[in-house]
Amino acid sequence: MSDDPLLVPLCDGDRRALARAITLVESTRPEHRDRAAALLDALPTGREALRIGLSGTPGVGKSTFIEAFGTMLTEAGCRVAVLAVDPSSARTGGSILGDKTRMERLSRDPGAFIRPSPAARHLGGVARRTREAVTLCEAAGFDVVLIETVGVGQSETMVAQLADLFVLLLAPAGGDELQGVKRGIMEIADLILVNKADGDLAATATRTVADYAGALRLMRRRPADPEGFPKAMAVSAVTGAGLASAWDEMQALAEWRRREGHWDATRAAQAAHWFDAEVRAALLAQLDAPETRARMAAMARDVAEGRRAARAAAEEMLESLRGA
Amino acid sequence: MSDDPLLVPLCDGDRRALARAITLVESTRPEHRDRAAALLDALPTGREALRIGLSGTPGVGKSTFIEAFGTMLTEAGCRVAVLAVDPSSARTGGSILGDKTRMERLSRDPGAFIRPSPAARHLGGVARRTREAVTLCEAAGFDVVLIETVGVGQSETMVAQLADLFVLLLAPAGGDELQGVKRGIMEIADLILVNKADGDLAATATRTVADYAGALRLMRRRPADPEGFPKAMAVSAVTGAGLASAWDEMQALAEWRRREGHWDATRAAQAAHWFDAEVRAALLAQLDAPETRARMAAMARDVAEGRRAARAAAEEMLESLRGA
Repeated sequence: MSDDPLLVPLCDGDRRALARAITLVESTRPEHRDRAAALLDALPTGREALRIGLSGTPGVGKSTFIEAFGTMLTEAGCRVAVLAVDPSSARTGGSILGDKTRMERLSRDPGAFIRPSPAARHLGGVARRTREAVTLCEAAGFDVVLIETVGVGQSETMVAQLADLFVLLLAPAGGDELQGVKRGIMEIADLILVNKADGDLAATATRTVADYAGALRLMRRRPADPEGFPKAMAVSAVTGAGLASAWDEMQALAEWRRREGHWDATRAAQAAHWFDAEVRAALLAQLDAPETRARMAAMARDVAEGRRAARAAAEEMLESLRGA
Repeated sequence: MSDDPLLVPLCDGDRRALARAITLVESTRPEHRDRAAALLDALPTGREALRIGLSGTPGVGKSTFIEAFGTMLTEAGCRVAVLAVDPSSARTGGSILGDKTRMERLSRDPGAFIRPSPAARHLGGVARRTREAVTLCEAAGFDVVLIETVGVGQSETMVAQLADLFVLLLAPAGGDELQGVKRGIMEIADLILVNKADGDLAATATRTVADYAGALRLMRRRPADPEGFPKAMAVSAVTGAGLASAWDEMQALAEWRRREGHWDATRAAQAAHWFDAEVRAALLAQLDAPETRARMAAMARDVAEGRRAARAAAEEMLESLRGA
């Protein structure tokens, strides 16, 4: 058992301890890394949140949706954590203020925890950070962890690798625009929610739902999908219409997957995937040591100037790493 | 000096020795790998071909272009090697017959050497194989190495990392279709050749050239570009129109880059890039050993079943690799 002073308050659900623990796993300082590894290894098992991946391009009303959906859940007694994975904000130095202000009500809710995207220097480690942050949220007793990402390719695949179910949020649109959703994202979505089903856009939203429902029927059913999934539905983050039904569907899907054994199988496969990714990252991290960098640079010069072939030089480098 | 029996005939330009040497660098068998590494390290330096990356989606007449362009070069006394990088054919098991038959005349030309895409099992190693095959072609005294790729993303970037100049082959098309070329490919192209500038399509080809010339003017000039580059031109692989001018432009560009120091700088940067990639690949290849795979699988189970945290398990794994 780790004697880390964060462990007990974290497991008691203290949000400040959770925030500090996430900062710890994000840190690249060696003493922080050791402490983070020990803390993670000491976390009690058996606490599982429903991990919901949520993707949607800017403009679909994602913040408003999270605010309304999250508040509905906390009012029902659920503790909700929101983790943002936003490669673009990571690149521009984090969106700490942005995330708090765009979900003002939820950020003041004692049943909620909002964690913005990590800052620029962690871009490469965003996957690890997010996965470990999810684990910490579960240890802190959160019931639902929303992992939010912007619709830009790789981050969706990454989030799908750590979510129990994946929700794609869309805006109402004409049939032609249906092509705009990347097929890869359609393929990982369990639930497509067409937002803004209110006022002038209500009819368009209904048509958009029908368009996507048609498109989903053309796709092959995946083994971990019950009859009727993936599903498309209309919601309005503004009026709240459809939010309760969407939550019912998510719970029903999660329940079915638990019952049929897909839940545990998926989590086990995800854990194995992350372990593999972790080993690969750790192997490559050996190259970051200052003396290794210097040696690499010298050998790269030899290769560049034709004194060595790349393959032979690489093998020599590897031997020196093994001996180190 | 390696006493490999392939070394002398290879350096004498023997095409059979070249083919066998490429087969050797493609091999994954340990004894072949050692032999390949020694052979590559023993190659004489100082022989440089003009390495031309060539991209074009199916239907633009790429094979016909290579056949016509390559034959023009061999008739002028150049020795021409054609290497195919086709991820899709690699996936379906190679296109050995395809590559030879689609360039029938060039494949019988004693001044030419055509090497099809490597077979399925080498997909991950396509980059290394291609780079080393280029090196072997240079050692065998080829003057021009055409590295041909299908317009599907990553392979272009890879080919650009080993070419001295990059040619994009396009078909004549209406202005609207201009958008279809990925911006990333436009950015690495030095020369855009609009093919099929003959018969009914001649006028459309001219307009397409003008469209691309306009688009290229909007892009920022790169440091290694002389005035007027990147450039768009019309060619016809069928009538041969424009092929000589295209070759003049390629030579002028290469000459300018040599004179201004960009050629050596680019090659040095490319070599350093490949050395780095080689070290990373070699580090990760440690995980392929059977006993390591077995140990990884056992630890992955521990992680999947919640007995270990991924990070701590990965660190233990790494220590055992270091001790091995």
